[in-house]
Amino acid sequence: MRNIKLLIEYDGRKFNGWQKQPDKLNIQGEIERAIEELTGEQVDLIASGRTDAGVHAFGQVANFKIESKNIPTKKFAVALNSKLKNSIRIQNAEEVDDRFHSRYSVHSKKYRYVINNSEHGSAIYREFEYNFPIKLDVDKMREAIKYFEGEHDFKAFKASGTSSKSSVRTIYMADIIVEEPRIIIELTGNGFLYNMVRIIAGTLLEVGQGKIKPEEVPEIIKNGDRKKAGRTLPPHGLYLVGVNY
Amino acid sequence: MRNIKLLIEYDGRKFNGWQKQPDKLNIQGEIERAIEELTGEQVDLIASGRTDAGVHAFGQVANFKIESKNIPTKKFAVALNSKLKNSIRIQNAEEVDDRFHSRYSVHSKKYRYVINNSEHGSAIYREFEYNFPIKLDVDKMREAIKYFEGEHDFKAFKASGTSSKSSVRTIYMADIIVEEPRIIIELTGNGFLYNMVRIIAGTLLEVGQGKIKPEEVPEIIKNGDRKKAGRTLPPHGLYLVGVNY
Repeated sequence: MRNIKLLIEYDGRKFNGWQKQPDKLNIQGEIERAIEELTGEQVDLIASGRTDAGVHAFGQVANFKIESKNIPTKKFAVALNSKLKNSIRIQNAEEVDDRFHSRYSVHSKKYRYVINNSEHGSAIYREFEYNFPIKLDVDKMREAIKYFEGEHDFKAFKASGTSSKSSVRTIYMADIIVEEPRIIIELTGNGFLYNMVRIIAGTLLEVGQGKIKPEEVPEIIKNGDRKKAGRTLPPHGLYLVGVNY
Repeated sequence: MRNIKLLIEYDGRKFNGWQKQPDKLNIQGEIERAIEELTGEQVDLIASGRTDAGVHAFGQVANFKIESKNIPTKKFAVALNSKLKNSIRIQNAEEVDDRFHSRYSVHSKKYRYVINNSEHGSAIYREFEYNFPIKLDVDKMREAIKYFEGEHDFKAFKASGTSSKSSVRTIYMADIIVEEPRIIIELTGNGFLYNMVRIIAGTLLEVGQGKIKPEEVPEIIKNGDRKKAGRTLPPHGLYLVGVNY
């Protein structure tokens, strides 16, 4: 039985997120269907984590175990791509140790949130970034984002109403990259709560507008009150960049 | 009477090109309609040149003359954008000298053609670049592109069957930029024939595959035989980057 690890890029626009669910287009279901069409075998495709409706991925990782020997591992990417919509591309397929698990084995994940800070926004990239037309103070955003680094209870930065045991996570790197007129937020951490990146991005947006001071961020983290953090920015600016094991 | 110059970005995917034509979605017609809705005045919007169906523009330039005084020039971009689909964005509007003419006053135009030279292509950018899966020899393409610089009769590089007086044009700069896995062709010239950039890109693609040698390019230009040049690459990889006056 082979354990196959896939590196997957997807354009999240038309999908209802990663997770399989009936009657809604989703990435997991599409890839499982393609595997079954190719091999006749039903598999469980396990991802590093879910992504929400509309969120993009350059480097989602998922694995599945398969008995069928009819497709050599190195042919799996091309074969799957031939059965998939081109809004999903398998960029690599490799055989990994039997104990490898896409979710449990994660060391870190990197996310990117792209804000286009120009008055009129981009016609060409409008579906791949969030346009915010009022000039943001990037220096303040840079100052604020550093407070997110380290181990914190990110209770204030998860969608309200979501149950999860612990909301403690570690962010290893938090950076702002400027590519005029774009402000790019990059976060690398051991895990992220539901909507966490989009709420952090929304909080930094308020910092950039002067509504929240950078030095207020530690207090917002500490209080754990969702209402003190910024709003959840829309999904189309968010990318799962990659997963490290 | 004001002469207003617009800087326009558009996502060419859904449009049948720049030029106005009945019953087909086009950029010129959309903007003229928006101007009429705002001012009540029918204008002729003159662009630096047409772009074909599916071609994108970061910086198309167009101008129109208007009697109406109800919208100050500096408000025109925001006002027009409010009446336009967001696949067209007016990035700037300014009043220019009465003699300014978007087409006749052109000094140079810059085009970009984007090839994604990766095996599986990009899920996210697939509608904004041309995927060619076989590894191209970039050094040979760099060597070949230099032969296009200067004044030449580009008869071999225009769509067959198109009538135009002279096919002599000057290319001031021709460069290959590599942003792995992308190979970007940039051409700046005083004018371009119908399909010229897409045929030059198709010819360079054959150079990259070893089907045409770089040193054969001057002969292909000289012979003026469309059949000796490469094929016309698809429009979705092409961008009008900007126009200089």
